[in-house]
Amino acid sequence: MRTSIATVCLSGSLTEKLHACAAAGFDGVEIMDADLVAAYESPEEIRALCERLGLTIDLFQPFRDFEGVDDATFADNMRRAEAKFDVMQRLGATLILVCSNVATATIDDDEVAARQLGALADLAATRGIRIAYEALAWGRFVDDYRHAWRIIQLADRPNLGTCLDSFHILSRGHDPAGIEQIDGDKIFFLQLADAPALNMDVLSWSRHHRLFPGEGAFALTDFLAHVLRAGYTGPLSLEVFNDTYRQTDAVRTAAHARRSLTWLADRTAAENGWPENRLDDAQPATGIDFVEIAGADLSDLDQMLAQLGFTFRGRHRSKPVRLWTAGDARIILNEQARHEQPRLAGFGLDVGDARSAVDRALALGAPNVFRRTYAGEQELRAVAAPDGTEVYWNDRPAETSWVTEFDGGTSDTGALRGTIDHVNLGYRWQEFDEAVLFTSSVLSLSSESSAQVPSLSGLVRSQVMRTPDGVVRLPINLAPPTAPLPTRHIAVRCDDLIAVARRARDSGLTFLQIPSNYYDDLAARFDLDSGLLSELRELGLFYDRDGDGEFIHFYSPTVGGVFLEMVERRGGYDGYGALNAPVRMAAQHSTPA
Amino acid sequence: MRTSIATVCLSGSLTEKLHACAAAGFDGVEIMDADLVAAYESPEEIRALCERLGLTIDLFQPFRDFEGVDDATFADNMRRAEAKFDVMQRLGATLILVCSNVATATIDDDEVAARQLGALADLAATRGIRIAYEALAWGRFVDDYRHAWRIIQLADRPNLGTCLDSFHILSRGHDPAGIEQIDGDKIFFLQLADAPALNMDVLSWSRHHRLFPGEGAFALTDFLAHVLRAGYTGPLSLEVFNDTYRQTDAVRTAAHARRSLTWLADRTAAENGWPENRLDDAQPATGIDFVEIAGADLSDLDQMLAQLGFTFRGRHRSKPVRLWTAGDARIILNEQARHEQPRLAGFGLDVGDARSAVDRALALGAPNVFRRTYAGEQELRAVAAPDGTEVYWNDRPAETSWVTEFDGGTSDTGALRGTIDHVNLGYRWQEFDEAVLFTSSVLSLSSESSAQVPSLSGLVRSQVMRTPDGVVRLPINLAPPTAPLPTRHIAVRCDDLIAVARRARDSGLTFLQIPSNYYDDLAARFDLDSGLLSELRELGLFYDRDGDGEFIHFYSPTVGGVFLEMVERRGGYDGYGALNAPVRMAAQHSTPA
Repeated sequence: MRTSIATVCLSGSLTEKLHACAAAGFDGVEIMDADLVAAYESPEEIRALCERLGLTIDLFQPFRDFEGVDDATFADNMRRAEAKFDVMQRLGATLILVCSNVATATIDDDEVAARQLGALADLAATRGIRIAYEALAWGRFVDDYRHAWRIIQLADRPNLGTCLDSFHILSRGHDPAGIEQIDGDKIFFLQLADAPALNMDVLSWSRHHRLFPGEGAFALTDFLAHVLRAGYTGPLSLEVFNDTYRQTDAVRTAAHARRSLTWLADRTAAENGWPENRLDDAQPATGIDFVEIAGADLSDLDQMLAQLGFTFRGRHRSKPVRLWTAGDARIILNEQARHEQPRLAGFGLDVGDARSAVDRALALGAPNVFRRTYAGEQELRAVAAPDGTEVYWNDRPAETSWVTEFDGGTSDTGALRGTIDHVNLGYRWQEFDEAVLFTSSVLSLSSESSAQVPSLSGLVRSQVMRTPDGVVRLPINLAPPTAPLPTRHIAVRCDDLIAVARRARDSGLTFLQIPSNYYDDLAARFDLDSGLLSELRELGLFYDRDGDGEFIHFYSPTVGGVFLEMVERRGGYDGYGALNAPVRMAAQHSTPA
Repeated sequence: MRTSIATVCLSGSLTEKLHACAAAGFDGVEIMDADLVAAYESPEEIRALCERLGLTIDLFQPFRDFEGVDDATFADNMRRAEAKFDVMQRLGATLILVCSNVATATIDDDEVAARQLGALADLAATRGIRIAYEALAWGRFVDDYRHAWRIIQLADRPNLGTCLDSFHILSRGHDPAGIEQIDGDKIFFLQLADAPALNMDVLSWSRHHRLFPGEGAFALTDFLAHVLRAGYTGPLSLEVFNDTYRQTDAVRTAAHARRSLTWLADRTAAENGWPENRLDDAQPATGIDFVEIAGADLSDLDQMLAQLGFTFRGRHRSKPVRLWTAGDARIILNEQARHEQPRLAGFGLDVGDARSAVDRALALGAPNVFRRTYAGEQELRAVAAPDGTEVYWNDRPAETSWVTEFDGGTSDTGALRGTIDHVNLGYRWQEFDEAVLFTSSVLSLSSESSAQVPSLSGLVRSQVMRTPDGVVRLPINLAPPTAPLPTRHIAVRCDDLIAVARRARDSGLTFLQIPSNYYDDLAARFDLDSGLLSELRELGLFYDRDGDGEFIHFYSPTVGGVFLEMVERRGGYDGYGALNAPVRMAAQHSTPA
């Protein structure tokens, strides 16, 4: 599989974009004319830079508003084309994208379009240039790939073929099965873009809201399968116009983009039983092995975990970390001076085959995390998520795992029997799609419930990524653009929250204080048993209920950039107390760490 | 006119919101239940705070999903209502909004709805509470204000009336003329919101994209006129759910909101020939009087203006400012140590009656700017725009104006005869609607062409505000959220740009350097006269052409936070060279100030 990307997908200058594409491992690029025009480097310099970086120039684009025009416009268009062919020769580019006429077409006649495109192809042939004609979804007379293909057949030139763009085809709801009717060697180029399901004009949808494959609503694996079955052998190229990717770091976005193609090729091959481009099978997570908090001074967390009923299991025999457990809930405190504030630094997932999970993650472009391992210790391999959070995989049962490497504590007292219910990760708004693609492709989690939660500084978008059975849940909370990053937290599930809360209170833990008005509202919303209501109010607990069950929870104070939540799920309750989140965030706003 | 605003419009805690509403001059508020629930303050404390701040609590809202339900649900809904009536009594609120049932209605029968609402009204009456029933645009059975009104008539209770919300009526395209069929004293409340014309589901449109009056596409003056003609005498209240306003500074957003109501009341009165709520008539600007650059050290600008052919007209006799002119283009350099970097600090507009323009601006809530004036000097009155830019108005001809107060320079040499073509203002993305409302209501400019310009750090949204005749043009450029503020600039129009450019070059001014690729592209796009092309290339000028004429322009280097553009408009060209803007921004990115 050869991979390519249009320079318009990325921020920065053309040379910055090319360096980012090379660093991400792309084989080639589509040079956007406008990016070249705005560059100080000559076409010859760009050509030389691409050669040095190992990037082929797979396409030069776009050339607009060419065919279906009157004779005077046609003559001017041929003149325009010749000028661009000059640039292409200086660049060393041999394929140009001609998109169907939007602005100047006046003649709705395939014969005319074919004759004019034929003349263009003949002119291009003298330069060794090939033409890829593409139907734009909003073309004046040609807005369907099948129509473009009929015109190409009519023109019948060896150097005139088509460019297929998943957006232009799928946004219009055109059946991609017809792609298999096209000669594979006449598909000169393939552009891939996903997009969310939006009910808006197709031009704005295309120009602002495209996504990388796997992030939207298009059936891209089916689409790609049709193209490959037609016999296409060129690169898989990304052309994603997206307001966010245009402004995020080019190196990071290019890596994100490259991951989407690896994922797409793997999924397409898997669904069709093809051996090429397959990764190791995804390893479904069967649990959260541990969560790690790092910071220069974690003594407040030691105290808090003890107050909650966690057991101190000791210090690691060779690393500056210590372990607290509460049944299956394991929290590692990593005290390294380089981190100023306590923060949620990583987590581990239980899987059937850890090596395979890591291999798959590395193949998906996740950077390897080095962790020194001494003889007799379990080697835990890990990768870094795009934001630096470390993700570990473990395939040993706890009794024989790294857990045995801690000394100086006691066995789990059983005072608190819990599991990690969810790990809530805060991101900046512009990191959303990257975080979702990482968790879906590398961690094999799926997007489930999503919500908009009002906070005092704007709406927080919350997207839960989880396993279908709910044993692993990673809610992703996104800050509004002007607001600080949402604080991350670890939620621990237990069976008798009221007892846990009472013991923690008795141990001196001060919970996040809940406004009295909240309990008045709770009483209005639910016809609660008065004993339960007064217990909730007395202990300062949150409560929610739906048709499936009940949810009781409370929050620790925030320590640096992290806090803990203790939850109890009664019956089949599967949510997160979304109605309580605004109250919780307002309370945290009023009582900063 | 009494004014009110729903607390959901603003960021911050409930007490922060209330302080902001009072500071902006609102008479009252709608307390959102969720804001109260998340507040530590008791209802009694909120009531006392409102009293101290001089705010009435005009509405408590919302109460949802009440009517059209089965008996068991109805009983629970009455219990819920009683609990909220308790809260209202503690708050001292006497009007509650009940919106039409979305979630639990199962009985599509007006008699049932009327009977249930009647029972609710009777319960409320025992507390001295009135009910305002509102049709939500997405109500299950009741989604039209006329339908809600029929149910209210059926129920026939003195303390049951309706709440009209412009969004719910206009978003559905319902004819607001029918409002005049409602008894004025049965319209218990009026909520106003504007919205952009968007093709999306009405719930998301309502929850995320509402705007303050005057910022969207709704015919709100017509709407308000219908309500007032019906005999409504209550407050004009804003209920604007907007993702941006939820995260911007509450004090600033409240001032912005209050301005929209003053504007709306004035426009409605003006259109209907009503004497109440009228402001001074808008003073159409007939020219840009001057632009002011402030900074600690402006010597680079002195040199640049001289190189461009401006004449030094001297220093002001009493203020630390100096004047440069080029015909009608006047630039004031204000050297005050408190500003670190040169920045575009203000501008003056020519109008027929400056006093009236200032009075109107002050009535629209723009803060007065104090400027010391000595005997014999023209008193130039000014206000501050929301971002702090100072706006002055002048109604004297230049010969007898403040221009005569400068000494020590020469008369205008005539070396450069120009006018200010446009003043380009850079804002942060979240300041867009506020800036548009200020320029439209206070400066009487209208929204015209808008564009999305690709920069190396994201799409820059550009919205031109101007007089119809184009003598005043203020393009507003908005930074992408993650990018720095766009640099502001002053564009000076002249008649022979090539001569101006040549002379400036000869005087040693180095223009912003334009990539050679740009001229190759220009040659491809336009079949340009080769003499003109080589002159553009030699001098480093930008060029554009459309059906109406031509545009030639170049840019100075950036000095601090400001730069100059010199432009020539040939024929009827009315644009700004939008296709050149990405090249200009890329060049500025590569050659920072």
